[in-house]
Amino acid sequence: MKNILIIGCGLLGSSLLKRISKKKIAKKIFVFEKSKKNFSKIKKLKLPGILVNRLEDAVPLSEMIIFCTPMSQYQKIILRINKFLTSKHIITDVGSSKIRSLEVIDRNLKKNISWISSHPIAGSEVSGPEYGKQNLFENKWCVLIKTKKTNNKHLKILIDFWKKIGSRTVVMSPVKHDKIFSITSHLPHLIAYNLVKSAQDFEKKQRNNLLKYSAGGLRDFSRIAASNEIMWRDILFDNKSNVISAINLFIRNLNNFKKDINSKNHKSILRKLRQTKKVRSKIIKLKQDIDKPDFGRN
Amino acid sequence: MKNILIIGCGLLGSSLLKRISKKKIAKKIFVFEKSKKNFSKIKKLKLPGILVNRLEDAVPLSEMIIFCTPMSQYQKIILRINKFLTSKHIITDVGSSKIRSLEVIDRNLKKNISWISSHPIAGSEVSGPEYGKQNLFENKWCVLIKTKKTNNKHLKILIDFWKKIGSRTVVMSPVKHDKIFSITSHLPHLIAYNLVKSAQDFEKKQRNNLLKYSAGGLRDFSRIAASNEIMWRDILFDNKSNVISAINLFIRNLNNFKKDINSKNHKSILRKLRQTKKVRSKIIKLKQDIDKPDFGRN
Repeated sequence: MKNILIIGCGLLGSSLLKRISKKKIAKKIFVFEKSKKNFSKIKKLKLPGILVNRLEDAVPLSEMIIFCTPMSQYQKIILRINKFLTSKHIITDVGSSKIRSLEVIDRNLKKNISWISSHPIAGSEVSGPEYGKQNLFENKWCVLIKTKKTNNKHLKILIDFWKKIGSRTVVMSPVKHDKIFSITSHLPHLIAYNLVKSAQDFEKKQRNNLLKYSAGGLRDFSRIAASNEIMWRDILFDNKSNVISAINLFIRNLNNFKKDINSKNHKSILRKLRQTKKVRSKIIKLKQDIDKPDFGRN
Repeated sequence: MKNILIIGCGLLGSSLLKRISKKKIAKKIFVFEKSKKNFSKIKKLKLPGILVNRLEDAVPLSEMIIFCTPMSQYQKIILRINKFLTSKHIITDVGSSKIRSLEVIDRNLKKNISWISSHPIAGSEVSGPEYGKQNLFENKWCVLIKTKKTNNKHLKILIDFWKKIGSRTVVMSPVKHDKIFSITSHLPHLIAYNLVKSAQDFEKKQRNNLLKYSAGGLRDFSRIAASNEIMWRDILFDNKSNVISAINLFIRNLNNFKKDINSKNHKSILRKLRQTKKVRSKIIKLKQDIDKPDFGRN
């Protein structure tokens, strides 16, 4: 790889930057960051790479372009760089939902330009370049999206790129991707937000300072609910129909569970509680978590 | 304190046992464990204390008795030890819901016997004596329940006991306790179960192996959903009315959130997502969690 341009240098952008630099994956790394606050943070942190003020300067010099901005920024940026793009560019992004963002890309991107979407399953409740970690992607899945338009030569290069970043790669369609992640990621996040909101509502109404006692369960959800709000609005809106199906499935289950509690249906509750335990063992077997009990972080 | 009897030696019982022994809080510690499996584990682990086969032998020799069994076991055990109890005994338990369990205790316990309920806010998704940790309660809240019947002298001794165990103590009524924990603990747990169940349902229906990608959020819920099922059935049934109110509040919020997604109400969604972030900072300020990002455990 010659040069890489990273557009948007928050948690994911800065983590990629550090990794690319450490593993010498590119000759030069250009970094574009719109936010003045993050721009000066990047300077202060002395991150590797060349901070550029104008996308127009960096695009023609880069072989690969990685969008690490919120998905709602894609259109604006595409329209700005379109005339500097050529068929040799490999463009990717790290957005968390795919069908809708690919529609936006298709509608706005100049013809015969190759954009292959990526979704590294890595992240955290924090955002900003100060949290970047070169090993953020280590052994994590990175989903690459294949459509009819996908340039297979570029796909191979991109798979190779993510492997160098440390990820395990898997290729799937945008439809499959958005379905799976509506359940494994989007639903858990919105549930966490709503759980924390319910606690806030209760606290206001009851005037009880209940957060003091959040170590009993609420705490763990508050972590997830602290994630970046712009990013999550974009995801929930973009993957609307899958997300709403997931919410409906969840509410159906929750209502049945409520009925079981109300009628004290021992058999049904115990069966349900036992079944969900199996998922935990599967997740550990799949190395998606470690088998170390969480005794309350302190 | 002279001698202490621990009834039920799972995660909490064995943690108390280790701590009492380490800090020399009692002269002798008697341990009663009904489950043969746990009994032999305790022997193998060479835990401190004296394993007793008959409650009848240990009760008259103990000044304090701590119930660490599932709440559904209380009645049976009370009826068994009643005739050995005197007004000098200080009895407590570590159950997670209070109104209903105190009713059971009141109905069954011999008159003029002092039972002051405790709820240490400590625990984990694992159970069994092999996970016991002497510092499980360190700096954690322990709620002590005060009612009209509470013997104040005994309450003072019990507060002192929990402080030696390492806890911070707070006294409240059973009504207040059960309301607060329906939101901070019981609701989060049942939500986690239902979220994991929804993922299972989806996996079956779509035949997608989605657990591979659970690091995006689902993983964190699966941890909570792996908690002991007998204990949680007891809690949810005992605190039924508060739990059902909490579920209803949550479903109301979730339905409103769904409407916001459906109508792409940017303003409302962003306001909600931002508000829940504040809770996270409060929880960290209250030292109920640490301000260290969770970049995916591995």
